[in-house]
Amino acid sequence: MAEQGLLIVLSGPSGVGKGTVREHLFEHYNNDFDFSTSMTTRKKREGEIDGEDYFFRTKEEFEHYIKEGKLLEYANYVGNYYGTPIDYVNETLDSGRDVFLEIEVQGALKVKQRMPEGIFIFLSPPDLEELKTRIENRGTDGPEVIAQRMDKAVEELGLIKYYDYVVENDTVDRAARKIRSIIESEHLKVERNIERFSKIIEEMK
Amino acid sequence: MAEQGLLIVLSGPSGVGKGTVREHLFEHYNNDFDFSTSMTTRKKREGEIDGEDYFFRTKEEFEHYIKEGKLLEYANYVGNYYGTPIDYVNETLDSGRDVFLEIEVQGALKVKQRMPEGIFIFLSPPDLEELKTRIENRGTDGPEVIAQRMDKAVEELGLIKYYDYVVENDTVDRAARKIRSIIESEHLKVERNIERFSKIIEEMK
Repeated sequence: MAEQGLLIVLSGPSGVGKGTVREHLFEHYNNDFDFSTSMTTRKKREGEIDGEDYFFRTKEEFEHYIKEGKLLEYANYVGNYYGTPIDYVNETLDSGRDVFLEIEVQGALKVKQRMPEGIFIFLSPPDLEELKTRIENRGTDGPEVIAQRMDKAVEELGLIKYYDYVVENDTVDRAARKIRSIIESEHLKVERNIERFSKIIEEMK
Repeated sequence: MAEQGLLIVLSGPSGVGKGTVREHLFEHYNNDFDFSTSMTTRKKREGEIDGEDYFFRTKEEFEHYIKEGKLLEYANYVGNYYGTPIDYVNETLDSGRDVFLEIEVQGALKVKQRMPEGIFIFLSPPDLEELKTRIENRGTDGPEVIAQRMDKAVEELGLIKYYDYVVENDTVDRAARKIRSIIESEHLKVERNIERFSKIIEEMK
């Protein structure tokens, strides 16, 4: 039996650079994990392949998935649904391959409720002190907008405690390498290897 | 206040290559951790510096340390004591630097009793199936010696469960890189960064 794959969830505030870091990670450090294929109700574009770019489904089919609890998380974005089919994730994990999700903070916490065994990584802004100063000093925003931005930032940073790891996105390559280290290190945990060793020990006795 | 350093304990069966991996790690990947300075009763050799190569102490002084419980672990090797002074380890950790110990399996478990917050890494032979075959097929050993070797191997592998991570020493560079990943990843854990973030969040409110 193959070792179970890991569910890796990369999340963080809007605009922190999750997509860029994920792309860099896949381009330079991806050996053995799959970027999760999402399900969507948006129209298939030319050249896109069902089951590869997305699982393309009708609105009715998608809502059936929601009703049956078959989505790890989902969101509605400009009139179309996007979501992560839980069966697909589980099948990939069972085959021993890791699944990588890149997702908003709220979505990540929903995933954590369903799959707490996942590895939750919070990508944080490079310099939090500076972020604060920037928000305060941004001359173009009125006091109300500043307050809203501060609230949003404080709220999202306050959710770090629900994550396993925090990686500062100081440079894209450094952040990607750190995420690679986390994934490698998680695979080396004794709890994920003990069955294999126990079997060998039994045979050696 | 600086973040607390990590106690990293590299251990594994005799002959697995702990020393070689540790040297490679320090030569190629060491940025910010200290190899722990041991205390010994053996005579200082020419060029050796007290407090750098070893803390050189008399037998009486060493036994006083033992009695006072001031050694993380110790052993007697060809008539001389060797041990790890706990105050030195704690001072280094408090200063925010990591401490790296390379140590036998039994000694590592003693360290774990005193400092369970340490990161315990078991270096395993590259191919356990082959190890078994090798022990069985080593033509020069009588059946009794084979049985002893098997017992020792089984006993030490059975202690993996008390460790946090297991790294196979397939090549020295791969093993060293994996250990580097583990140390990096441990520093990225949310529990080790939450205080810093909480402070910033408080200031942003």
